[in-house]
Parts: sequence; C-alpha cells; structure tokens
Amino acid sequence: MKVTTNLRRESTRSHAFVRLSGDEPMTKSLRRPASDAVDRLLNPKSIAVVGSLREARFGGYVTTNNLLRFGYKGKIYPINPQYDTVLNLKVYPSVKDIPEPVDLVVTMAGAPAVPKIIADSVHNKAKVAIIISDGFGERNEDGSRLQQEIDRIAEAGGLRLLGPNTIGVANPAIGLVTTPYRVSYDKMIAGGVALCAQTGLIGPQNMPLEETHYGISKMCDFGNKCDLDEIDLLDYLVNDPETKVIAMHLEVVRDGQLFLQKAREVVPKKPVIVLKPGRTRESQRAMASHTGSLAGEDVIYDSAFKQAGVIRVDNFRELIEIPKVLATQPLPRGNRLAIVTISGGAGVMAIDIASTHGLSLAKLSAGTLEKLAAVSPVLASNPVDLGPGLPAYQVAGGIASPFPAMIEAILDDKNVDCLAMACPWGVRGKIAEVFGPMAKRNTKTTAVWVAGPSLAMAEEMNRDFEAIGLPTYPDGDAAIKALSVAVRYSRIKAQFSAAKGQVR
Amino acid sequence: MKVTTNLRRESTRSHAFVRLSGDEPMTKSLRRPASDAVDRLLNPKSIAVVGSLREARFGGYVTTNNLLRFGYKGKIYPINPQYDTVLNLKVYPSVKDIPEPVDLVVTMAGAPAVPKIIADSVHNKAKVAIIISDGFGERNEDGSRLQQEIDRIAEAGGLRLLGPNTIGVANPAIGLVTTPYRVSYDKMIAGGVALCAQTGLIGPQNMPLEETHYGISKMCDFGNKCDLDEIDLLDYLVNDPETKVIAMHLEVVRDGQLFLQKAREVVPKKPVIVLKPGRTRESQRAMASHTGSLAGEDVIYDSAFKQAGVIRVDNFRELIEIPKVLATQPLPRGNRLAIVTISGGAGVMAIDIASTHGLSLAKLSAGTLEKLAAVSPVLASNPVDLGPGLPAYQVAGGIASPFPAMIEAILDDKNVDCLAMACPWGVRGKIAEVFGPMAKRNTKTTAVWVAGPSLAMAEEMNRDFEAIGLPTYPDGDAAIKALSVAVRYSRIKAQFSAAKGQVR
Repeated sequence: MKVTTNLRRESTRSHAFVRLSGDEPMTKSLRRPASDAVDRLLNPKSIAVVGSLREARFGGYVTTNNLLRFGYKGKIYPINPQYDTVLNLKVYPSVKDIPEPVDLVVTMAGAPAVPKIIADSVHNKAKVAIIISDGFGERNEDGSRLQQEIDRIAEAGGLRLLGPNTIGVANPAIGLVTTPYRVSYDKMIAGGVALCAQTGLIGPQNMPLEETHYGISKMCDFGNKCDLDEIDLLDYLVNDPETKVIAMHLEVVRDGQLFLQKAREVVPKKPVIVLKPGRTRESQRAMASHTGSLAGEDVIYDSAFKQAGVIRVDNFRELIEIPKVLATQPLPRGNRLAIVTISGGAGVMAIDIASTHGLSLAKLSAGTLEKLAAVSPVLASNPVDLGPGLPAYQVAGGIASPFPAMIEAILDDKNVDCLAMACPWGVRGKIAEVFGPMAKRNTKTTAVWVAGPSLAMAEEMNRDFEAIGLPTYPDGDAAIKALSVAVRYSRIKAQFSAAKGQVR
Repeated sequence: MKVTTNLRRESTRSHAFVRLSGDEPMTKSLRRPASDAVDRLLNPKSIAVVGSLREARFGGYVTTNNLLRFGYKGKIYPINPQYDTVLNLKVYPSVKDIPEPVDLVVTMAGAPAVPKIIADSVHNKAKVAIIISDGFGERNEDGSRLQQEIDRIAEAGGLRLLGPNTIGVANPAIGLVTTPYRVSYDKMIAGGVALCAQTGLIGPQNMPLEETHYGISKMCDFGNKCDLDEIDLLDYLVNDPETKVIAMHLEVVRDGQLFLQKAREVVPKKPVIVLKPGRTRESQRAMASHTGSLAGEDVIYDSAFKQAGVIRVDNFRELIEIPKVLATQPLPRGNRLAIVTISGGAGVMAIDIASTHGLSLAKLSAGTLEKLAAVSPVLASNPVDLGPGLPAYQVAGGIASPFPAMIEAILDDKNVDCLAMACPWGVRGKIAEVFGPMAKRNTKTTAVWVAGPSLAMAEEMNRDFEAIGLPTYPDGDAAIKALSVAVRYSRIKAQFSAAKGQVR
C-alpha cells in the first residue's frame, strides 16, 4: 500500500557500503540464486492476485483490471473468499485453491494477513510473490517482526519475495503491470530501458510513459528488499535481450562488495546508471534513522561506483532521461559534438554545458562547411544556427526544408561523434518524413529537443521523434548532458575491455 | 530578422568586465539618460511598423497583426509605399508621412534600407526605434559600419535605438508585442517578472507563456545593443511598479563598473537574477571571436555579481523558472523548509537538494505534529509524506481531503519559513477550492510541483496553481532550488539594508 514510504523503510538485511572497508562482507554463498525466480517475476505465465475485489481506485480489482487493460495474456487468478467472479474471471477463495502452481502471487492484503498468504503460496508451489502491502519493516518493530516472519516462511518453502511495500513490476512486451493504482492509460511502449527503484515514483501510475513514448524493457520497485534486490536484477538484466541500459535508484545497497563485483561484470556489456540519494548529511540522517545505514558514506559510494564503471546521476529526472540516448543510439567514438541550434544565444549556452561535461565542439571539415553553405551561407559553422535563415526558409520551402541536406552533411563528417539538435516547432507534422532517414541510418549518437510556444505541440513532436527512435529532451542542457554520459560510457566500456584483455 | 544570431553579435561599444581592473572605465557621462525613451519603448501610445505587409509568417504584417491580436489599444501606423490599407489600418508610404510624432518605430526592413528609416524617424521626432532587422554588427564588417551609421544618425537626432537584431519588447498589460514572428496564441498574462535577454529565445513566439500562465511585467531582447542596454533597463525597471523581479540573460555586459553600481542600487529593492553564459573557455572563445570581449573573465563576473548582490543562475531554464517564486511569494524569514511529498523516496531526494542549496529541514513543533497526526498518524513528520495514506484518503474523502488541515498546520508553525509541496494528480479540478485560502493567506514562501501519469493533466493543474498565485515547477528539485534563491535574496536584501544603515 504505497506510493511510497522509503523514508521509513528498513532493510532487514541492510549491508551498507561501509562494509567495503572490511567489516563482515555478506558472502556470495549466503545468497540463493534467483535468476529463475526473477524470470518468473518478469515473465509470469500465471498470476494470482490477492486483495480487495471492490471496484475502487486501489486494490486487487485495480491490479486485475490493469493486467487485462494492458493486454496480459497469461492466466489470472483473482483470490477472494467473498466473490465468485470478477471482470469475467473465476475467483478462488485462497491461493491454496488454485488448481495449478502459479508463477507469481501479487498481494496487497493488510499486513497481518500476509504470512498466511505466503504460506498458501508455498503450498501452491508458486515461484515468487510480490508483496505490495505496507506496514512492515518500514513502519515499526512489529512490522519488522512480521517482515522477518514472511521472509522465513518463504525461504523455508523455496518461494522468492519482492517487497514488501512495493508497487511491483512491469514488462510492457507482455502487458504485465502489477501496480495496485488505477492507471490513466492502457498501453506501455516496449523499449530498451530497464528501470529499477526503491520507490513507487516509477511505474505507469506515476509516469507519463505513454504520452512521452518512453520505451521500457522491465520495471521493478524493490520495496523493502526483504529478499530480491539489485544484485538479483543485475544478474537477470545483463542477459535480458530487451534491456539495453540499466537505470537504478538505490537508497541502500545491501551488499556493496557484491554489487561492485556484479557491476563490473555488467558494465562491459550494458551501461549501469545509478541514482544514489543521501549526498548530504541531512538526507543521510533522514535515511539513517530508518534504514540503519551509516552516515558519511557518500564519498565511499562515489568512488566505489567510479571503480566499478557505474555512472552516477544527480537527480531523478536524469535517471529517467539519460538512459534514453543509451537505449536507442549507437555509442559515440569520441567526444566531438555538433550542435544544431535555432538561436546563436542558445548555441553559446549549449557550448557551456558541453564543455562543462567533457564534450568538445567538433571542428567541421571544409567539405562539410561547403555543403552547409550550399544549403544557406549562414549555416556554415558549428553550432549550425538555423536562426538567421528562418524567415527565408519559411518563404522558400518551409522550415523543414534545410534539414535533410544539413543533417546529412553533419552526419557524414568524420570529425563529428555526436549531435545535439534543436528542432523548431515549424517542423511539426513532418518529423518522420524529415528525420526518418537519419534515424534509420543511426550512425552518430543523437539527442533532440523541441523549442516552441506550445507545450502540447512540443509533446506531440517529441512523441513523433521517439517513435522513429530519436531520443528527446526538454532542453539543450538535458540533451547534451545525456550525450556526455554516452561518451563517458563509451570510454568506460573501452577501458573495461582493455583491462580484460590485459588480464588474459 | 532573427531568432537569433548572438554568436555573431558584435557590440560596437563593448566594455567587458575586464574593465573592472581599471582599464578605461566607461564613465557615466558618456551615457545619455534614457528613462523617458525606455518608458516610450515599453508603453508607447503610437507605433509605426515598417516592413513587408504581405500576409506571411514573418514581417511587418505579422507584427501589426500581433499588436491587434494581443489587444494593443494605441495608434498603429503601418508603413509601406505599396499598400493603402492593411488589416483595416491606413498605410503610410514612409515614416515621414505620419501626421504626428510617434513614440515607437519598429522596423524589420532589410539592413541597407534602415539608415533611411532611422533618418525618417528622426524627422518624425519619434522617441525610440526597435531595429528587428539583422545583417549588422553580428554579420560582418559592412554590417558593423552600417550599425555605426544608424547609431550616428539616431544619436544626432535624439532618437534612441533598441537592437539591431532583436525581436523587440512586450508589455502584456497593454497588449504590446513587437515580435515579427507569428505567435500561436493571442494572450499574455500580466505578472511580476521582467525578462530581458540578448537572445530571441525569449518572447511569445518561442515560449509557452499562455499555456504556463507565466506572468510577465516587461520583456526586452537587447539584440546588438548599439544603444539601449541592460543599464537603461535596470534604471527603468527598478521604478516600474509592475516589476517584482528582474531576470536578465547577458552575453556581454557593456560597462561592468556601471552595471555593478546600478545593480547595487536595484538589489535592495528588487531581486536581480542573471544568466551569464561563457563559463568555460570553449564558449568564451565562441563569444570572443564575435563580440570582442576577452576570455578568462568568468571568475571576475562571478565575484563581481556576488559583490553586487546579483544572483547568477546556471542555465536558461532556471532564468525563466526561478523568478516566479520571487514574483508571487513573500520573502522567507529564514531557511527552514517544510516538504510535502507523495513518496518517502522523493522526500529523501528533496532533502538532498535542499541541503545542497543551503536550506535546512524544518523541525516541526510538537503542536504541528499533533495537528498532522490528527489528520493521519502517518503524516506527522517532515517531510510530510502523503504516500502511505493515499489509498485511505481515496476511500475517505478523496485525495484532496487531508490538504486543508495539513497545510494550515504547516503554515502556522513558527519553525517553518518556506514550503515545497508536491501535489498528487488526484487533486485535479480542485486546486482553487483546496489551495485558494492558502494562496490568499500568502504567509510562507511556497513552491509547488505536480506529479502524475499525464503531462496534459499536470499542465492543467499547474495553470490552476499559477492562476491563484502559487508558482509551479516541473519537479521537486526545481521548486526547492527556486526556494533556495528566495532565501538567498532575502539574506542579500537584509545585508544590503544593514550596510546602508551603517553608512548613515
């Protein structure tokens, strides 16, 4: 029952990074292998939903309805002793009464009822259970005891748990959406970003995933992490063919040593982007009073992430936005940036952001400058400034008219590794036509932003760009920061591969 | 003719901050007093528009039409020898033929035609001219000479100039909009933010001012600054009763010494927020090659701004967003922040941002905690977390139900100076009803953000908040950064007042 209570969360097996300094590292042998369970969690063939089946804005009815609305094709078993059918599905009085072992049990029943539900799930030989219910370790000592109890029952019975205090998971490719909150849309876009978090801020109930055409491979809210955690998801996602980039929000890393070891295995294959709150003493105190993790460890996190090739971002917006460029674009070979701007002033600001983040302004080749000048003399420089020519383009062939030749010239230039492109709103309605060939070619890391006097119009254009595989950002700063992360990952990947080569 | 070419702009009288170190400061006596001209620029009783009157997306027809659409009530004189009437207005062949002296001449005629138009404007005894046309100092040496020529003609004739290479000005209170680009809406909101820039990124042709209910007092694009500049606008805006906060984007400060002196006069009365690009060597080079300003001066700008009490922001988004809280909210008495969050995880992130920017988490008084607990036991802490109770509120009285008593308790607490408030999308449609009393009370500096699964819905709610005078931000980070600037300005104002007291 949440969107969400992390502040009061307590990880019953909390192992903070302070352990890195030698104090009782959790050894690998303590962990049960979970890849099969995580696969069932994210690709269940059958799901039992245990909770209120009253038509409301929250509960078992909503989860069941979400599964149907998002097109989940597996078997759904609503569980409730007071109903015979709901949403044309047969209702079973308890998990024990389901005629087959299910892959996944989802429950949002009140905390005191959960141990019985877990025991029933063990009896059913279910593979994994999502405990959406709150009132456990995050609440108080009674809750902690209850959490330990369900953990014990599950472990003894070979059942794996996600949560408690989670909104669960999503897998757009199969219409899997376990959130117990009503969602205002009924379609998620399948894509390359795996998004994991220790907060219900993620998930379709709270993110405009459809409106922004945001492509998700898998989504997972860890909740209190009484069992499955970031290590288990890394283990699974590194081999998940749909996942191109892994983005994680982590309040507590349960086993720092092991996390770094896993990350080092994953990073040469896929980028790992992490948001780790608790940068300041005040927020550390806020978390520490509830999670038992020690204050003062942020510097340790910072350097540990760097060692492991994990890229740390500064805020939640970046955690969501930055992975898009990594999920859809080729990796840049260098840091040389071409900028397309609709204003000289914006061009200067773009250079500021670029050089702050380690990108350099590409020196366009003489051939490129000639080709640009052939489109319009005022275009022959980097930043390529559409501004001065706008009135002329409007008269000549429309604002879209200079784009195809201009973009081709830039993409053909061997001095260009990546492209940050502003798109004026006059190109509205022609995105696929004008930029489709460029998106198909997919040779240089590109990030786009739309500027204009209407939010609705910009959002429509962003969707059109995302639909052809070009990632969009709210402004030039965000686009360029994302490109700089792609450059950084490209270097990290090369370093890790070189280091591996040396070890051989 | 622009959106915009600052990269190639050249300020013919460029005086960079390097002058601060003693080298030939521009003395005050070289400047002609401009406050009357700036008043005519921003409150003209009559306007001549010189440019193409063909119905198009750019030009004199568009400017004339914009003035009519935005409800400008003064006299409009379209100028063109080829037309008799346009948009039901009598057209005059030249500015010389206008039967009365006009306050303002606006021209977007081709650069070579501009000297004649300026001479005609002098003949007309016009007060001020906006030269939208480009192809002057920002283009090449010929353009520089042309710019010097018009400057000479104007100065000799007592005419003041804005530009060239500008989109001009706006004053929503009187429907004044000089942009030569078609605007997709026809209403600007009058408010407390004066927005000045050396770029056409500002202005209704490029900003969703109506959709975001953004309240503007005055807007001014300086362009090449051949005459009127930031000093003249500061002089005017400090006494403009509509202006509560002054936000400026400045590529080049023409007279550093004088700017600092002016800023020191303004800052005790109104906050001055500045975006000064050119933080890095690469962007400095990009500007330097076209403006003649010297590289390496960013540190000097930084410390000079600090001395003068000018608050420097990091990017264009902040330049636009941060002033909203200063334009609408009371100044905070201290730095103690209350946070309303819909998620514990978001609460931790909010504390991170707050403490990074010098805010401290308010310790709610025992009385406040009691009052919050009376609404719901899970609310009794700071951050005040709506998350755990959401399902219960949905059942009880709707998601809006806890807000009135909760907000009142927080605002009554003497330990709270400012409030960062997340609003869940379930409160949609009830903003005025639920938050109207709080907005009316207007006792504590407040910034709001809306979280939810739909952009359109969030935008609608943001508009509803802005309409009752509560400033909205895209996320908690932006809201808290804005509050931190309000705290900073509050301190600066107190320091400047104390220093003034000592001098007496």
